[in-house]
Amino acid sequence: MTKGNINVSVENIFPLIKKFLYSDHEIFLRELISNATDATLKLKHLTSIGEVKVEYGNPQLEVKVDKEQKTLRIIDQGIGMTAEEVEKYINQVAFSGAEEFLEKYKDTAKDSGIIGHFGLGFYSAFMVAEKVEILTKSYKDEPAVRWICDGSPEFTLEETTDKTDRGTEIILHIAEDSTEFLEESKIRELLLKYNKFMPVPIKFGTKTQTLPVPEDAPEGTVAETEEVDNIINNPTPAWTTAPSDLTDQDYLKFYHELYPMQFEEPLFHIHLNVDYPFNLTGILFFPKLSNNLNIDKDKIQLYQNQVYVTDEVKGIVPDFLMLLRGVIDSPDIPLNVSRSYLQADGAVKKISSYITKKVADKMSSLINENREDYEKKWNDIKIVIEYGIVSEEKFYEKADKFTLYPTVDGKYFLWNELTEKIKPSQTDKDGNLVILYATNADEQHSYIQSAKDKGYEVILLDSPIASHIIQKLETSKEKVSFARVDADHINNLIKKDEPVISKLNEADKESLKRNVEEAISDAKFTVQLEDMDSNDAPFTITQPEFMRRMKDMQATGGGGGMFGMGGFPEMYNLIVNSNSEFANQILKTENTEEKVSLIQHALDLAKLSQNLLKGKDLTDFIQRSYKQLEK
Amino acid sequence: MTKGNINVSVENIFPLIKKFLYSDHEIFLRELISNATDATLKLKHLTSIGEVKVEYGNPQLEVKVDKEQKTLRIIDQGIGMTAEEVEKYINQVAFSGAEEFLEKYKDTAKDSGIIGHFGLGFYSAFMVAEKVEILTKSYKDEPAVRWICDGSPEFTLEETTDKTDRGTEIILHIAEDSTEFLEESKIRELLLKYNKFMPVPIKFGTKTQTLPVPEDAPEGTVAETEEVDNIINNPTPAWTTAPSDLTDQDYLKFYHELYPMQFEEPLFHIHLNVDYPFNLTGILFFPKLSNNLNIDKDKIQLYQNQVYVTDEVKGIVPDFLMLLRGVIDSPDIPLNVSRSYLQADGAVKKISSYITKKVADKMSSLINENREDYEKKWNDIKIVIEYGIVSEEKFYEKADKFTLYPTVDGKYFLWNELTEKIKPSQTDKDGNLVILYATNADEQHSYIQSAKDKGYEVILLDSPIASHIIQKLETSKEKVSFARVDADHINNLIKKDEPVISKLNEADKESLKRNVEEAISDAKFTVQLEDMDSNDAPFTITQPEFMRRMKDMQATGGGGGMFGMGGFPEMYNLIVNSNSEFANQILKTENTEEKVSLIQHALDLAKLSQNLLKGKDLTDFIQRSYKQLEK
Repeated sequence: MTKGNINVSVENIFPLIKKFLYSDHEIFLRELISNATDATLKLKHLTSIGEVKVEYGNPQLEVKVDKEQKTLRIIDQGIGMTAEEVEKYINQVAFSGAEEFLEKYKDTAKDSGIIGHFGLGFYSAFMVAEKVEILTKSYKDEPAVRWICDGSPEFTLEETTDKTDRGTEIILHIAEDSTEFLEESKIRELLLKYNKFMPVPIKFGTKTQTLPVPEDAPEGTVAETEEVDNIINNPTPAWTTAPSDLTDQDYLKFYHELYPMQFEEPLFHIHLNVDYPFNLTGILFFPKLSNNLNIDKDKIQLYQNQVYVTDEVKGIVPDFLMLLRGVIDSPDIPLNVSRSYLQADGAVKKISSYITKKVADKMSSLINENREDYEKKWNDIKIVIEYGIVSEEKFYEKADKFTLYPTVDGKYFLWNELTEKIKPSQTDKDGNLVILYATNADEQHSYIQSAKDKGYEVILLDSPIASHIIQKLETSKEKVSFARVDADHINNLIKKDEPVISKLNEADKESLKRNVEEAISDAKFTVQLEDMDSNDAPFTITQPEFMRRMKDMQATGGGGGMFGMGGFPEMYNLIVNSNSEFANQILKTENTEEKVSLIQHALDLAKLSQNLLKGKDLTDFIQRSYKQLEK
Repeated sequence: MTKGNINVSVENIFPLIKKFLYSDHEIFLRELISNATDATLKLKHLTSIGEVKVEYGNPQLEVKVDKEQKTLRIIDQGIGMTAEEVEKYINQVAFSGAEEFLEKYKDTAKDSGIIGHFGLGFYSAFMVAEKVEILTKSYKDEPAVRWICDGSPEFTLEETTDKTDRGTEIILHIAEDSTEFLEESKIRELLLKYNKFMPVPIKFGTKTQTLPVPEDAPEGTVAETEEVDNIINNPTPAWTTAPSDLTDQDYLKFYHELYPMQFEEPLFHIHLNVDYPFNLTGILFFPKLSNNLNIDKDKIQLYQNQVYVTDEVKGIVPDFLMLLRGVIDSPDIPLNVSRSYLQADGAVKKISSYITKKVADKMSSLINENREDYEKKWNDIKIVIEYGIVSEEKFYEKADKFTLYPTVDGKYFLWNELTEKIKPSQTDKDGNLVILYATNADEQHSYIQSAKDKGYEVILLDSPIASHIIQKLETSKEKVSFARVDADHINNLIKKDEPVISKLNEADKESLKRNVEEAISDAKFTVQLEDMDSNDAPFTITQPEFMRRMKDMQATGGGGGMFGMGGFPEMYNLIVNSNSEFANQILKTENTEEKVSLIQHALDLAKLSQNLLKGKDLTDFIQRSYKQLEK
């Protein structure tokens, strides 16, 4: 039996790392700046714990493009490397100096912000460079060294006097096929995308700054200007600061920093901060959602130790919160080597439910702090809450505390408030509480009016997923049912044990019904006589709750398509008020033609209430009506 | 100066490969089956070119789960490995035997279907197994060997007599945290997801098959059954067959194989097949898109050499074709090492434009082959074509050949047919061709009617991106403009040099205008008198084309939000027909109250034509009208 070790040869693996590991060439810059940041943070940590006695100062990174020399340089003032350390950290692929550092100083360095993880990032330089140089001088009293490699696994390493100050300079000799990375505008774009919030200041060029005019200067003196370092990042973004140290203004400022093209202000923010069982910080913003649902732009951004990773946060953020904006920063979100892909695991689920819980808690505290303000914002936030209710059980369990049910008159009730309010009047004879709702206050106006005339409350459920919310509520609340105001005549929606007065005798009723049926001859209307108040509309068109709801569910994908594509028939009831004056008039009109046209015109009016009179029928109706005016 | 080689140590890289390279643990099975397939295809190739003189036979793969032993086995009857080859191919991470094979036999093996690429897939076994065994016997006359590794880089290798037949058996001893992969149902699910169309038959368990009852058996004889191999895949899916060898039925059958839960049939298919400058085969299906836009389900699937990779094809397939279904198979699509992420490059763009071109060509040939059938399908395909027109210039350039413009009467015109037809009647006095359109034939019925009374054609543009299509056409066609039928009175939409007859004198006109303005007192209506035909409607509400179009563009994200959120005011013209009988009646009504109520009722009727009468106003209108009936 042979024993041995599995073997990795650099000739095989190096080309893969260079070419196939990373999906986007541009991330080389993110990786090199992450390394430079780590070099700085390591020195910061070592000086802070007194292990290293050099001056830490105010180190910064610098990125320089030289189009003529075809170089791009990343310079730090961090810990630097000795020749021995170059051998150890650079010449060994996948040996992570960051991991080693965190292991060595694990008692103190947990929150040092060190980024590195896999020990592969440096080699991404070869995706865009034909040759890479490292000039580095350690904080230790040792000579500077120069390392050069042309992308073959062969390198050279020598002492140099070219570098006298502490730190590391990476010089990329950009390859022919990657000259876009010699454009200042491109580098600026990348720095702003990946490094905008990294913890060490990054200098990129200079900018002109106007000096204040001295007070004693003669009038008309032109202000002098000076060139100053252009720092491209904000090293202490709001989410790294304790909430207690931030004002509402600070959050707003950060929002605009994050989304410079977003002019509208968010409604409110949620500051995330958790240490256990995972580390996560972040700030979520609720934008106004009522109008602009451009969900592809300005999405939630994921960071790891202030390095931008992606704005594809599906899985980390629950689906119903994908419309929010903001940042999430966690070193604990498991990504694959190139950080391009989330690795689904238990930790991710925990993060997702933590976020759900925080959002629910925030809603509860917002409504308690300022009910009036919360009601004003309701229209802009309801889509998120409603989607949460139907998709996340944990969220639904808390949702009664902060879900509002607006009435068509603009009053807002919590669930308990609503049911308390309507219990006396809207409990039917079987003891069920009937919640009346409209999906469109305008279109269902006449039905709403009938309900209000009875003293009932009508809530407005105008969300596209209203039918799903109703189903959720009906199945989880006891003895509660929902009915849309136009599902039946109001007396039938909430059935009471009340005597019915009938003005017509049975024979008249029968002939009335026959008259109407003969006149309309449309199979989609079922004629139904009701003894209503004489002032109620003579004709009313209703659509049974169950049937309409099935259609709604189908339209929003909930019906599972079991009835096939749009296979639901349009069926309505035509309720004829047999106590109305108009009923009498039908009966007493002798001329058949006149009777028919009377009934048809009344049917047209009933159709108008249901938005059912359209096309040619509507045009004819209008022409007929104009003619009547001319009489 | 030191020279040296960058070095990769297995201790460092192995954990990364095991844990962080692949985003999904489940893909280990895809990788091992790909290897087993390659082992089989290599033997096939070598026997086919005569290099190897063994019997190829009808080899198959087998997958076996043993829950008790906690093992999962993948067995092939392929080329096998000698001890020396195990050392070479297994013990060297990232040395790709597949690449070596393709290089060695490059003259003949180009189309052999060999899958492997990076030489890393085998190690993904350690994501789920605590120990991996390989039992293998080469086709060469050498002893079988057994390789064992527990996930540390240490392995043992020894000769064995446990395997006597040719091929390789991989035995995974599944780790405690991965026992889900010992469930038959889970393995079946994975095989169906990743390997359903792989080129070598894969046996997974057995199934019971009913034998035919012999003809001479006595009546009532129960059919006998037998256990047969359960082959889980179709090794020759339709896209690997030449189009000339496939019937429409074959395509349909394949569609249902691909989407077993999809019961509706596609409208037509497009067979993709290209060798140069890249290799790509595939079949795209046009589903019926009119109703069910469930774009998250049953998406286009990407394969590489019949191995399922992903259904995220963004970038490869142009955006406007993302609603199609089907498969694309190309060994040339650059993916990263774990195949989870597309690497954007020039080749991908070429693929995308090839697909665009093929779809355009297919449309052209479909309309030429059977115009009537194409017209019938138009409603189901137009959303794709329309989106293509506004988003892909190359597609738009060809689109006149297959884009239909339906009229409100159900006639269908190509662009040239339409403009030829309407040129004589719809060219205005400045020589511009005015194309009249409606966005909703029902809602704009009365306006359509006015246009048709003039002998004009009205096309129906009811797509959500209609305003973008119109803009595209207006900017690329000469002397053509679009006007919605309700943008103005029909005489103004297509202005002709025709004499106007006026029944009222100027004084009457002025007092008519003043009467109307005083009665309606609503700033959103601008009153405008027109000398129209006396039979035309007395009142007409119009909305200027430019204003309405700006609003539409804004609603579909095209306006760039430059006017702020919904900041566009609702503005209409109220056109009063000064030649109508009704105009006379207004003038001659003396009682002011009566005059006002006359005008208001007429305005309500005009609002009905524009779907503007809603809520309380509508309810009041209806009640008023019922009252009139009762008179």
